Amino acid sequence: MARVVCQQLAPRIGDLAANRLLTVNAVRDAIVAGADLVLLPELATSGYCFTSREEAVSVAITTKHPLFEEWAAELGRGALVVAGFCEFGGDGLLYNSAALVDQSGIVTVYRKIHLWDREKLVFQGGEQPPPVVDTALGRIGIVICYDLEFPELTRGLALRGADLIVAPSNWPLVDRPAGERPPEVVAAMAAARANHVFIACCDRTSDERGVSWTNGTALINELGWVVSTVEGEGMASADFDLEQARAKALGPRNDALADRRPELYSDITDREHVDASV
Amino acid sequence: MARVVCQQLAPRIGDLAANRLLTVNAVRDAIVAGADLVLLPELATSGYCFTSREEAVSVAITTKHPLFEEWAAELGRGALVVAGFCEFGGDGLLYNSAALVDQSGIVTVYRKIHLWDREKLVFQGGEQPPPVVDTALGRIGIVICYDLEFPELTRGLALRGADLIVAPSNWPLVDRPAGERPPEVVAAMAAARANHVFIACCDRTSDERGVSWTNGTALINELGWVVSTVEGEGMASADFDLEQARAKALGPRNDALADRRPELYSDITDREHVDASV
Repeated sequence: MARVVCQQLAPRIGDLAANRLLTVNAVRDAIVAGADLVLLPELATSGYCFTSREEAVSVAITTKHPLFEEWAAELGRGALVVAGFCEFGGDGLLYNSAALVDQSGIVTVYRKIHLWDREKLVFQGGEQPPPVVDTALGRIGIVICYDLEFPELTRGLALRGADLIVAPSNWPLVDRPAGERPPEVVAAMAAARANHVFIACCDRTSDERGVSWTNGTALINELGWVVSTVEGEGMASADFDLEQARAKALGPRNDALADRRPELYSDITDREHVDASV
Repeated sequence: MARVVCQQLAPRIGDLAANRLLTVNAVRDAIVAGADLVLLPELATSGYCFTSREEAVSVAITTKHPLFEEWAAELGRGALVVAGFCEFGGDGLLYNSAALVDQSGIVTVYRKIHLWDREKLVFQGGEQPPPVVDTALGRIGIVICYDLEFPELTRGLALRGADLIVAPSNWPLVDRPAGERPPEVVAAMAAARANHVFIACCDRTSDERGVSWTNGTALINELGWVVSTVEGEGMASADFDLEQARAKALGPRNDALADRRPELYSDITDREHVDASV
């Protein structure tokens, strides 16, 4: 059983020192609460609403930055952190990235491949599919925020064996009908069920430069049901038996992955498609 | 604006004569209610819980059966029916099929490609991807029931220009947490939003040989929200501006389809994948 804890934080825009303290404390508190895996939001080290690329550069960090060691220092054997950060790449470009960190430091870094809105003015999109990391807790796939809205991506992670998909996010609040969940959570629920995988989405909280956030943190089981959320700053937590994600049978004659008919799905990897606006 | 009417019926197992009357009346009633498109459940002509392949053969019909002309006779110019039927193929095999019918008769037939449970003992899976039919109402994609749970399929239909995806269904009732929608509807909501398409799911009602049905009929708009449902036997109805499905922009810099990174999605069309149980 793995305890997954999402820390719905309020990073401070452009203030690396404050966010360093905030995130180290958040990791520590989650570990005290028994976390095996601590998930922090997208761009937890930098905030989100940059006024310019220059402002993002001013808080961007490389993977050599001591902050990753500070997170690692909070972890016992086998425990993990996944957190979003503003990455200064070796190529001089900025990436909206997430690091998976264990006691020894960074295990892997993923660079967001689907950029939302003004991110396109600041960041370069990643050029590698999201990773699946084999850990002592189980196999963990990593996506970031808007990535989660592409069902191709979550399916691909499941096909590569992910038991749990984690999604550091910053979800700007959008209108929704009364009584409905955030639409991003509906997408995550459907992805969890379609692929029989656990999904943990860690959103942020607190307004930033006129943007309100969804406070949509959600822990979703392998059947697609939300089992934990949190309002405002704080933790959402769930104990997941990640082994359950490996049995894909849906009954005596069905299997969530083996029932696929990939020979009939060629449309979705075609580089060109019918222009739907015609 | 197109009025889509789902008729949540209770077909009688193995009784073609009764279902003929039931479906013709259902089409007529929907047209009286102003329907431009009438959607009936999966296997509306035959019922679902066959005890044997022989029983299914006894109510299977070819596409030459006069029933299709009887549905057509209820339609004014431009109006359409999509309904599931138990098809006796020219190859001597049975298919779980759906026909799109206009005033002149059958326009297209789709054979379900993802078979659920005991359907595998009775039916042959189709070998063609689901169609997108260009009609006076808009471009209509057709899937059947369990097909809808494969996000590859709904994505493919959107890429081929579908404005509305219709899904004749028979959803056996499954457990779900209190207050939750049927999981199949959650999947449809996510597919509608991810692809910015309208989706109409027409479920059936009334127990059949010990199987209870979900009564999950749902009309879902292009933003992914349920706008109409129905309890028990009867109609769910919505007026959809199908043109709205053609604008895929999600804001000044994003587009539900153009933001895809198909060069990074190769996993999902690979014929082989990591066995997740290892």
